[in-house]
Amino acid sequence: MSDAFRTWMKTTQADCEIALAEFLPAATVVPSRLHAAMRYAALDGGKRVRPLLVYAAGCLFGAPAGLLARAAAAVEMIHAYSLVHDDMPCMDDDALRRGKPTVHVQYDEATALLVGDALQAQAFLVLSEGAGDPGSKLAMLNLLAQASGSLGMCGGQAIDLASVGLALTREQLEQMHRLKTGALLRAAVLLGAMAGKQLSATETEALDSYAAAIGLAFQVVDDVLDASADSATLGKTAGKDAADNKPTYVSLLGLDASRQLAQQLCRDAHAALQPFGDSAQYLHDLADLIVQRQA
Amino acid sequence: MSDAFRTWMKTTQADCEIALAEFLPAATVVPSRLHAAMRYAALDGGKRVRPLLVYAAGCLFGAPAGLLARAAAAVEMIHAYSLVHDDMPCMDDDALRRGKPTVHVQYDEATALLVGDALQAQAFLVLSEGAGDPGSKLAMLNLLAQASGSLGMCGGQAIDLASVGLALTREQLEQMHRLKTGALLRAAVLLGAMAGKQLSATETEALDSYAAAIGLAFQVVDDVLDASADSATLGKTAGKDAADNKPTYVSLLGLDASRQLAQQLCRDAHAALQPFGDSAQYLHDLADLIVQRQA
Repeated sequence: MSDAFRTWMKTTQADCEIALAEFLPAATVVPSRLHAAMRYAALDGGKRVRPLLVYAAGCLFGAPAGLLARAAAAVEMIHAYSLVHDDMPCMDDDALRRGKPTVHVQYDEATALLVGDALQAQAFLVLSEGAGDPGSKLAMLNLLAQASGSLGMCGGQAIDLASVGLALTREQLEQMHRLKTGALLRAAVLLGAMAGKQLSATETEALDSYAAAIGLAFQVVDDVLDASADSATLGKTAGKDAADNKPTYVSLLGLDASRQLAQQLCRDAHAALQPFGDSAQYLHDLADLIVQRQA
Repeated sequence: MSDAFRTWMKTTQADCEIALAEFLPAATVVPSRLHAAMRYAALDGGKRVRPLLVYAAGCLFGAPAGLLARAAAAVEMIHAYSLVHDDMPCMDDDALRRGKPTVHVQYDEATALLVGDALQAQAFLVLSEGAGDPGSKLAMLNLLAQASGSLGMCGGQAIDLASVGLALTREQLEQMHRLKTGALLRAAVLLGAMAGKQLSATETEALDSYAAAIGLAFQVVDDVLDASADSATLGKTAGKDAADNKPTYVSLLGLDASRQLAQQLCRDAHAALQPFGDSAQYLHDLADLIVQRQA
């Protein structure tokens, strides 16, 4: 990774934090406990992979900063809500997230449920406001809703729930992850690009290939880290997949083959970006980051 | 209530059922258990008060049927998701809804959580698709997101949670209900009108007054019914408010004064509709329906 990329990443993460802080109601606004908990869930934590993808894809077609900030905040709010709900006792029952107590532990279960619900609404609210062509914004909202719903992230969660203790094939495992994490990562890439211009079929196809590769790579690396890193490094409970008897790439392919698969997917992602030339440099470097990350 | 209104209501409820059935993924689509549970939660039940308000307000300015169907389905999906989450053990812990086992009882808690999450996304998805001017649709999505989120329905829920066992003043009780149920009822009225034309400030103000009156009336009648009807008539557990030590209009004003308040609010609602003349007849009759309902 180049110094230019590192600098861009730090700046963009800071921009995203500012955007999230601005687009969430202040903790002083009634109902203040709910707003404090929403900010606890969404601010000051996470690698901001999805916002980075939004901003990096925004570079392809010179998207305006204001619209990128809204798209980045919206995608991250959807991601944050999904973590709050996933951590609840009736789902993964996890007490630690991003090195902090999870929302239902820090507050209570009912508040965690409402925090997730309100963050989802806030995501659509943020993207429906501000400047920009109404037609493009409507298309962006449509994409975000698709990626979040029963044929996207929520659907992937449902398949995940149903698969605990089952011996999935590699194809079934891929389908689950394509929905569970892949759909929102893809949305992040496309939203950033759509903020710049209306995409041609060829452009969408190339970005889809890139997003599919990094989406899968992201999950393979997640599985590798869960099996090989410790909780302090991860900022969440390590080894949970095996303990929960969940199917993973590591349980299916083993650690070494999983690492090799991640490398191959990274090369696939790079190849998909060729049509965009130098304007895709940050997307290129983000694929490296996703595969090389240690947490 | 006139025969014309009754006929319109039956036809509109049937139209709404068809729209919901069409705008929800089929139960055969993977993940099929999630989709079956979403349909279980949203179809074949309920008085469809919010969709009726959408369609009735649509009559004011001749809104196209296609856009009304989407707005009605979207509002009802938000309402249905809120019921699924409210009934969960960490919230109201209710086993009966619309005469059927609640979603977490019929399926399981994790599925109920995902059903609510996916229904919310589906609401925004449905409204972002189909025909219509992009600018109006964006404004409608914005309104729906506001009404659903932390400054609307979710915020009202949070205040409700925090108020259990407290002696609220009438003003505090009103503020809670203005958010908890009022915001979405208001959205239903405005969405129907906005589907017809861009509203002037005067028109918005008149519809706001109408919506505020019926929103409050709706809640007063809810409290009266909870205190005076039985579970079989209500299709949900009666007497829960008192058992849960929740502040209600009945506990604050008594049964008779609550009934009188509902009648007064109905007259206020009628008065707010005067500028619209005969085109507001269905909205007028819906105010009667809300106050006279027995369940």
